[in-house]
Amino acid sequence: MKLLEERIKKDGILINNEILKVDGFLNHNIDVALINEMGREFARLFAGLGINKILTIEASGIGIACIVAQYFEGADVLFAKKYQTKNLDQETYSASVTSFTHGRDYIIRVSKNHLNSDDRILIIDDFLATGHAIFGLMDLVKQAGADLCGVGICIEKAFQGGGSLLRDAGINLHSLAIVDIRENGEISFIDDSDAESMIK
Amino acid sequence: MKLLEERIKKDGILINNEILKVDGFLNHNIDVALINEMGREFARLFAGLGINKILTIEASGIGIACIVAQYFEGADVLFAKKYQTKNLDQETYSASVTSFTHGRDYIIRVSKNHLNSDDRILIIDDFLATGHAIFGLMDLVKQAGADLCGVGICIEKAFQGGGSLLRDAGINLHSLAIVDIRENGEISFIDDSDAESMIK
Repeated sequence: MKLLEERIKKDGILINNEILKVDGFLNHNIDVALINEMGREFARLFAGLGINKILTIEASGIGIACIVAQYFEGADVLFAKKYQTKNLDQETYSASVTSFTHGRDYIIRVSKNHLNSDDRILIIDDFLATGHAIFGLMDLVKQAGADLCGVGICIEKAFQGGGSLLRDAGINLHSLAIVDIRENGEISFIDDSDAESMIK
Repeated sequence: MKLLEERIKKDGILINNEILKVDGFLNHNIDVALINEMGREFARLFAGLGINKILTIEASGIGIACIVAQYFEGADVLFAKKYQTKNLDQETYSASVTSFTHGRDYIIRVSKNHLNSDDRILIIDDFLATGHAIFGLMDLVKQAGADLCGVGICIEKAFQGGGSLLRDAGINLHSLAIVDIRENGEISFIDDSDAESMIK
């Protein structure tokens, strides 16, 4: 998605070979107009699949998922919780996830009351790096017996391998920007359809 | 707001004298259509104030803030972070907050790059209980020298006192549903304008 690629070029900051900082528009300060454009693009990419629920993970996925959900008629958002709270149901689906950004393992949970076998799920997240968080969310969907219709990612970091793992597993994955790093340390972009064709 | 009060009556669960569980539509599974109605109401209540940024706190405030921001033309969302991450700027405004729901103290932070003295801020959150989180967010606004135009809350729990503290301090506070608990343990609602008149 050109608009997102251009914004990454303009405002994204490559901290090192692993961390791309986009907190000016995506995951701290949020450009809601940009996210709406991304919502329209996800709606085009995942049209006709009967999606009724957008599943994401706290915290930075939530705002994006809520905007995106507006482009899937009648769809609610469900976000997996990373932290224990007093107000989560006792009965949950849970999975263990290793966080790259936070440098630790944690348990993600959703209430069994809000994820069901008749749900048709689109997973949405801001970043795809190693894929651990997405595989954790997919595990929750599987436990509930729900249908996974696709995975929509704002920014995929090609060099961390999660996208390849998901495509090799046959997941209907679309990333709006797939970032790679050139040898000179500059950001480059891979086309979504080229990423598809790189499946082993 | 009648629509929200009716939904609380229908799907809210009073766990005890302090915790009202609304995870079916507000802070775990999110009814995006309902949040849009709330966004329209916030836009009416805070019209004409030149608001250019919606400030909230992770996690459950983020989705609501993103939907609400769409009703304030050109407004971005900024969410205060509760947890240290590798990708937050070193230069932050920070405040200490006691969490009622999580039962512990934590530090909230926003990057100095995204909160400025020319910002006109609307604080949005899902719940108002003791008011600690809101006073923490107000502290960040003050540190940045930004203007606080108002505080918009989805559900205020009158019996925990935060609303009275904010109104007594002269804050332009609007809560879409103000919940009280009757002696028989049932939920009742206080009108927003009645809450105003209860200021000491």
